[in-house]
Amino acid sequence: MKRQDEGLAFMLIYENIAWYEDGAVRILDRRVYPAKTEFVTCRTHVEVAKAIKDMVTQSAGPYTAAPMGMALAARECRDMKPQARLEYLRKAADTIAHARPTTAKRMEIVCGEAYKAAEKAISEGLDAPLAIRERVIEMNNERYARIGRIAEHLVDRFPDKGAVMTHCFAETIIGMMLKECVKRGKDIRIFCPETRPFFQGARLTATCCRDMGFDVTVITDNMAAFVMKKEGIGVFTTAADAICCDGHVVNKVGTLQNAISAKYFGIPYYVTGAPDPGHPTIDTVTIEMRDPEESLMAMGVRTAAEGVKGYYPAFDVTPPGLVAGVVTDLGIFSPFELAGYFKAAGEGRNRVVV
Amino acid sequence: MKRQDEGLAFMLIYENIAWYEDGAVRILDRRVYPAKTEFVTCRTHVEVAKAIKDMVTQSAGPYTAAPMGMALAARECRDMKPQARLEYLRKAADTIAHARPTTAKRMEIVCGEAYKAAEKAISEGLDAPLAIRERVIEMNNERYARIGRIAEHLVDRFPDKGAVMTHCFAETIIGMMLKECVKRGKDIRIFCPETRPFFQGARLTATCCRDMGFDVTVITDNMAAFVMKKEGIGVFTTAADAICCDGHVVNKVGTLQNAISAKYFGIPYYVTGAPDPGHPTIDTVTIEMRDPEESLMAMGVRTAAEGVKGYYPAFDVTPPGLVAGVVTDLGIFSPFELAGYFKAAGEGRNRVVV
Repeated sequence: MKRQDEGLAFMLIYENIAWYEDGAVRILDRRVYPAKTEFVTCRTHVEVAKAIKDMVTQSAGPYTAAPMGMALAARECRDMKPQARLEYLRKAADTIAHARPTTAKRMEIVCGEAYKAAEKAISEGLDAPLAIRERVIEMNNERYARIGRIAEHLVDRFPDKGAVMTHCFAETIIGMMLKECVKRGKDIRIFCPETRPFFQGARLTATCCRDMGFDVTVITDNMAAFVMKKEGIGVFTTAADAICCDGHVVNKVGTLQNAISAKYFGIPYYVTGAPDPGHPTIDTVTIEMRDPEESLMAMGVRTAAEGVKGYYPAFDVTPPGLVAGVVTDLGIFSPFELAGYFKAAGEGRNRVVV
Repeated sequence: MKRQDEGLAFMLIYENIAWYEDGAVRILDRRVYPAKTEFVTCRTHVEVAKAIKDMVTQSAGPYTAAPMGMALAARECRDMKPQARLEYLRKAADTIAHARPTTAKRMEIVCGEAYKAAEKAISEGLDAPLAIRERVIEMNNERYARIGRIAEHLVDRFPDKGAVMTHCFAETIIGMMLKECVKRGKDIRIFCPETRPFFQGARLTATCCRDMGFDVTVITDNMAAFVMKKEGIGVFTTAADAICCDGHVVNKVGTLQNAISAKYFGIPYYVTGAPDPGHPTIDTVTIEMRDPEESLMAMGVRTAAEGVKGYYPAFDVTPPGLVAGVVTDLGIFSPFELAGYFKAAGEGRNRVVV
């Protein structure tokens, strides 16, 4: 099996997710990758917010793009007095964090970290945009280390030889999971539902798996149950846009029905991440309803006749009863026992993993 | 609500499904309808078999196209002696009926009826191709009448005002079902999963619903469970490519997972048609595995990178435990009690509904 990390590395290094330099943030356009490798250049933090809303980057991408956008905001207001500058940055953080509703809580945290870095730099007379960028790199490195530990716990649950199903593009955990499989010599075939309407599974996840040398098969979203049974899927796994403390999982639309099918066939569904103290219950989550017209397009071509309505919930909600375990950096927890995560962390309920 | 039947009529009249005339069979190309209204012209019965294999027509379309192909075969051998001609027609029936494996049993029956019509015409010195075409029209009319009765029983199970989910393109029953809703003043919204990879739900079913003046929404295949819960789907219903006498339903891939989700949410799944004596158990069914590359295309554009595998089971199997009822022309039967259908028909186990 050929193994190479370049492709995955290309997707995930900060410079390609989103990078602040010379008064611009350059974001890899995941809407067209890998067919095209193109970057969207944002010259204001408002443009960064729009790029996030328009899904130029998605999954964990916005957690890099958003604070890089804060660096841009810090540059925009460089000629203001310190107090006005901080006010400007607070407003910018609000704009960027609320580019999409479902992940706003986690986005507020990363933008808040960027704000704190800027505040410190301003008070010390240092370059605020660069201080923010340094903080983004630091946060990403912390995240990558934490996700490496998540991958170890997840791969514990994989068969030595077998098949795993994903959904959408699970960002860093996909790469870490595959690296861990290689390290342990686990022979895993990956099945990726294509994930309509933007095909993240077909374009991003499958490309990552291929770049890492794995046997990877893309299926259309209506084949998940068939494949679970026919191909003997051993584990269904996804990341999440939010894991509520009550065990509800918010993730790309389709996760719910795949979890229902997995349960029907007795296949465990493992979600990776950590419970989010910003979401004590599912009632605190707003599901983003996107432009219905987006669902009537496939790879840029309209599918349905005029006069037919579209529909586009970006996420769905999987109840804890369908989740076998929440795989965190501190081990695997029952979705009904997530308080244990905060207890294990010894940090009260304030530990936030983005 | 605007109601007009022209669009539906256009899809379903024999002349558009498949029509034999002047040494050719002209088939509406459902792979591009409604974006384009184009016909594929077949000049030999082998070309008809290929058109069926290539999905120029699908759902119940092949049950018209196949015997029309037999008319073409009868013309091809018009200069042979009667005995050789019948031999030629037997071979042609075999070729056409086995164009796709999963529906071969039902295709053998319609081709067999065409053969019988030709045999009679030949023995009486009449025009065999035209005799076959007459028989096709007769069979279709019988089918339409029978499906009209199925629609009455199905719509009995619909709410007076509510939402219904379909899957793929259920051909005649869609139109009959909508007509019946209009007749009874039932106010039904229709949700159509788009049905990858060929988008029959988005292109064919949704267009039918729109043409009949209904409120119709296309969803991507990964949204079915979300919509079932959020939009309060009252009934999930499909036709079937085969209903085995043991209650297993063979239909377009995705039916299984939608039935699993429907069961999870307590929504009844009604399948329309009749048990097929050619399939006493599911073990007699071969699931067609189509060219995997077809699943890596969307509206003519490739979705995944090179080196990524595709996968394409055309159908899946829904076990009887997920089926609320088999809706036939003779009423609704439990999937576990399908012997009752043949008893009600008073025709032993030989009644075949195509």
